[in-house]
Amino acid sequence: MIAGNPVQALLIDIAGVISINGEAVPGAPEALKRLRDRKLPLRFVTNTTRKTQHDLVTRLQQQGFDLESNDVFSAPVAARNYLEQHQLHPHLLIHPDLMPQFDGMETNDPNAVVVGDAGDAFTYENMNLAFRVLMEHGTLIAMGDNKYFQDEQGLSLDMGPFVHALSYASGIEPVVVGKPAQTFFQQALDALGIEAEHALMVGDDLEGDVGGAQNAGLRGVLVRTGKYRPEDESDPQISPDAIVDHFPALVHRLLND
Amino acid sequence: MIAGNPVQALLIDIAGVISINGEAVPGAPEALKRLRDRKLPLRFVTNTTRKTQHDLVTRLQQQGFDLESNDVFSAPVAARNYLEQHQLHPHLLIHPDLMPQFDGMETNDPNAVVVGDAGDAFTYENMNLAFRVLMEHGTLIAMGDNKYFQDEQGLSLDMGPFVHALSYASGIEPVVVGKPAQTFFQQALDALGIEAEHALMVGDDLEGDVGGAQNAGLRGVLVRTGKYRPEDESDPQISPDAIVDHFPALVHRLLND
Repeated sequence: MIAGNPVQALLIDIAGVISINGEAVPGAPEALKRLRDRKLPLRFVTNTTRKTQHDLVTRLQQQGFDLESNDVFSAPVAARNYLEQHQLHPHLLIHPDLMPQFDGMETNDPNAVVVGDAGDAFTYENMNLAFRVLMEHGTLIAMGDNKYFQDEQGLSLDMGPFVHALSYASGIEPVVVGKPAQTFFQQALDALGIEAEHALMVGDDLEGDVGGAQNAGLRGVLVRTGKYRPEDESDPQISPDAIVDHFPALVHRLLND
Repeated sequence: MIAGNPVQALLIDIAGVISINGEAVPGAPEALKRLRDRKLPLRFVTNTTRKTQHDLVTRLQQQGFDLESNDVFSAPVAARNYLEQHQLHPHLLIHPDLMPQFDGMETNDPNAVVVGDAGDAFTYENMNLAFRVLMEHGTLIAMGDNKYFQDEQGLSLDMGPFVHALSYASGIEPVVVGKPAQTFFQQALDALGIEAEHALMVGDDLEGDVGGAQNAGLRGVLVRTGKYRPEDESDPQISPDAIVDHFPALVHRLLND
C-alpha cells in the first residue's frame, strides 16, 4: 500500500532502478512481468541521452526486460517533440550516439541549442559554437539538469553543469524538457490517459525523480539503489511518499497487499 | 577633471583599453609616457589568463609600452598569492601557456582547483578531473568570472561559465581572486600605498572593471573601446564616474585640465 488513491499507473526510471551499469537489477525483469500480467499501465521515463530510444530498448530487452519502444518516454524524444511543436531548427550539443534520434530535422540556420549529456563532445569548440547560436536569438533546450552520475570511472559530469555554463554566458534561461520538468511527467501520463493523482513515479534520484514527480502531482517513490544515498532519507526539502529497497520490493508491495 | 578627490593613482585594464588583439590602441603608448613623466603611480590590472605575466609584459613592450613586470598585477598572480597564503595544492584547469606561472608549486594530492581561461583545455575529461577534486573537499578558485570575449573568431567563452558549471555540479561557491573581487583591487592599491578614494580604475568592462572598482571604493571610468557596447551607458545598475572615447582621451582629461 502507498498512501493516497489506488495506483492506476506507474512511471519507472531506468538507470539505477531497473538496470545498473548495463545489467538488470536482480529480480527486476520478473517484477516487470508481474506488472504486465496485472495489465498495470506503465511508462519507462528516462533522462538518458547517450543513446537513441531504439538502442536503449534493445539493450534492456537483452537484459531480459519485456518492453518495446512505445513503453519508453525519454528526454531526447521530449526534446524532439518540443522542437517540432515550436518549429525550431536545432544546433545539437549531444553525444554522437544520440544523433540518429534527430534524423531528418532541419539543422541549417539553427535557432535553438539542444543540450544532452554530450560526454567527450563537450569540447571548448563545441561549447563556443552553441554559445554563438544562443547569442543570435537562440532558445536553450536542456534535456535535463542532472548534475553528475557515477559510472566505472567514478563521478562524471552530466549535462546540467554545461547547460548552466551556457545560460550564464548568454543570459538565456534554459527550457528543461526532461525530468524534473512537470511537462515531461505530464506528457508521459497523457500517453497513458491517467491523471497524476492516480499515478506513481519510482526513481533513484531524489530531486529529479521524486521531487519532480511530486511537483507534477504524482506520488514519488525512492529506491535504495543506483545514485541513492542514505542522506536522501532526511532531506529537508523532499519527502518521498515511500522508500523501498529496490524495484522488485516496490512491485511486491503494490501487488501483494 | 573627474568628480571627487584629486586622482593620485591609476589602475588600468589592458585588453580592450591599451591593447586590442595584439596591437596598441593608437596613442596609448604616448599617453602612458605622459603619465610616467608626471610620475603618477599606476598599475596595470588584468584578468588575462592565457599567458604568463612575463609573456604579457614582453608583448606589451613590443607594442611600444614603457612598462615592466612589477607594473602589472594579474589574476594569475592573485591566484598564486591566494594558494600560498592558504597553503593549498592546486589542480590547475588553465591554459597550457599559463602553466609556468605556477612553477614550483606542489600539485600532488590537490585540495584546490584553479580555473582560468583554459581555452581548448576545457575538455570533458579535464572538467571531470577538476570536478572530482572538488568533490573531495576542494576549494574552487576562479581567476575571474568573465562571461566571454571577442577575438578574431567572434565571441568565445571565457572562464566564468566553466566556473559556474563546476560550482553548480559540486555545490561549492567559487572564490574569485581576479576582477571584480574587492580583494583584487585592494591588493593592487596596497602595492601602490594609495587609498581607494584617491584612485581611479579605467576599463572597457562595465561589470568587471567599473562596477568592481566602485564596489572596492575606487572611481571607475569606462572607455568606448574593446568590449564596450553603447547600452553600457544606460545600464540600470552601474554608472561610470566618467566615460571617455579611449585611454589617451582619459589621460588628456586627467593631465590637461
